[in-house]
Amino acid sequence: MSIRIGILGYGNLGKGVEAAIGQNPDLELAAVFTRRDPAMLQVRTPGVEALPADALLKMQEQIDVLILCGGSATDLPGQTPYYASLYNVVDSFDTHANIPQHFAAVDQAAKASGRTALISCGWDPGMFSLNRLYANCILPQGKDYTFWGKGVSQGHSDAVRRIPGVKDCRQYTIPVPEAQAAVRSGADPELTTRQKHTRECFVVAQEGADLAQIERQIVTMPNYFSDYDTTVHFITQEELDQNHAGLPHGGSVIRTGKTGAKGEHTHVIEYSLKLDSNPEFTGSVLAAYARAVYRLNREGNVGCKTVFDIAPAYLSDKSPEELRAHLL
Amino acid sequence: MSIRIGILGYGNLGKGVEAAIGQNPDLELAAVFTRRDPAMLQVRTPGVEALPADALLKMQEQIDVLILCGGSATDLPGQTPYYASLYNVVDSFDTHANIPQHFAAVDQAAKASGRTALISCGWDPGMFSLNRLYANCILPQGKDYTFWGKGVSQGHSDAVRRIPGVKDCRQYTIPVPEAQAAVRSGADPELTTRQKHTRECFVVAQEGADLAQIERQIVTMPNYFSDYDTTVHFITQEELDQNHAGLPHGGSVIRTGKTGAKGEHTHVIEYSLKLDSNPEFTGSVLAAYARAVYRLNREGNVGCKTVFDIAPAYLSDKSPEELRAHLL
Repeated sequence: MSIRIGILGYGNLGKGVEAAIGQNPDLELAAVFTRRDPAMLQVRTPGVEALPADALLKMQEQIDVLILCGGSATDLPGQTPYYASLYNVVDSFDTHANIPQHFAAVDQAAKASGRTALISCGWDPGMFSLNRLYANCILPQGKDYTFWGKGVSQGHSDAVRRIPGVKDCRQYTIPVPEAQAAVRSGADPELTTRQKHTRECFVVAQEGADLAQIERQIVTMPNYFSDYDTTVHFITQEELDQNHAGLPHGGSVIRTGKTGAKGEHTHVIEYSLKLDSNPEFTGSVLAAYARAVYRLNREGNVGCKTVFDIAPAYLSDKSPEELRAHLL
Repeated sequence: MSIRIGILGYGNLGKGVEAAIGQNPDLELAAVFTRRDPAMLQVRTPGVEALPADALLKMQEQIDVLILCGGSATDLPGQTPYYASLYNVVDSFDTHANIPQHFAAVDQAAKASGRTALISCGWDPGMFSLNRLYANCILPQGKDYTFWGKGVSQGHSDAVRRIPGVKDCRQYTIPVPEAQAAVRSGADPELTTRQKHTRECFVVAQEGADLAQIERQIVTMPNYFSDYDTTVHFITQEELDQNHAGLPHGGSVIRTGKTGAKGEHTHVIEYSLKLDSNPEFTGSVLAAYARAVYRLNREGNVGCKTVFDIAPAYLSDKSPEELRAHLL
């Protein structure tokens, strides 16, 4: 019998989860839920309906795990605890500073309902976090580095779009090759924000806009750009649509550390991702962890979890014997 | 209270475990055990004794986890099941083909004694296996590649040393850069053994030995060298001792896969290690997992485990709250 998955929110991430479900024979898409008018949605999977979010009040018999595909700023802080009182849930909450309070709220709801919830799943937080944890445990005397990109930052693209005179924008975060090389050499460099990443913006300006003024506003924008070396290119909407339509991303988590009686040996552990589609990769991680959440709940392991709490074998549809014979 | 670790076998790996224990404040080296004459061993950690392996018959009150640092060919197949009947144990059994039967023997012994055992821990099998598993679960439609090196293969070095006329040898396994680049590009190449790695031997010959004959015997040796392009360098013992004394190793596990409604997006997941000291890194992995084994046993989770069965948080001496706040 398949594990029946519900998707709440049918944007890029929801569609990424849907595509991942299609690659996992033991997972089945039960329905897509939306807070918009379901009639406006065309679900790609044949035979699967779009339903209003309110339908979730009474679908516990049809859904094993609900994957929440909303945003961390305004959707998930309310949604995840709420739906954890009704379903096993998985979210990709990524506001690092608020994880402790989000965890507490979801844990309380899930424990009260006897459900299992997984928060902050994806690649960062998610796979990058896992690799930070493993590497820290193996090399307790060491230093962590995270590089992001080259990839599209949606938050930064949005920030530029809010500048008067800007019609559209794609912002790329780019790691500095010299910084990466220094880290990989084991030299333990101290790196400033500016030394680690550069930013590149492809901007479509409204007709007659003051380009110099837009550029100045971008490169001096606090939090988003002022601590970085930023390059701004003005292009046409056609160029943007043609050359910058994708949502690639990626990055590396690197830990360097010393071992030996006198710390005489250096080791470099690196986990890196090169992703053509950020939302499809994230959706693929969420789908694998939905399988784990379903199993944990069947074992009576309820409450809120993170990727740290889940043994890797739970993610796989293979038996322990198969895993030991073929992947160990 | 510290977790008290015993080490059985005081070669390179045993010393690597000892160094790792010194980096983990919650771990304590209780004693080193040897099947040789303990009087011949000088334990590096002040105040720690070398004891005969027989002393392990009656030290259950002093040792929480015993780390078995013997070899996979002849030591561990007997030792791990035997000591799992007396202690929580960790080993680095790495004969991939025999893992299922080793698991079965250790599982039976550990369940009968109420102990927890972890087999095949280290980096391959171990961290590489974990990364194969995670990547396979995330990208079910994809392809796995493992590259080893550049690093010293002790098995291959030993094989060359057994050739008549050879006094000493260091053998390096080297990944082919073009093959790695093709894999990282997402091109999914089919690669033969010869296309993935080359081998390089630094050989000290006995005086008057027939060098051409030694070289021929190396490069044509079945299983070890005949499927590879192998380069042989004859050097002096002094050069070998000076330039090839270390045991560096490393490698990469790469999985490339497709996502999207039509598999239109390619993703590359890579986990790579650059290790100055293979035994010290392996020892560091074993030490972190000894902590996990101790905790699992305290929770009543007995029997044989692999790295697939252990949630990452068990490896860390930090609390779940700290991990969520700082590493997620």
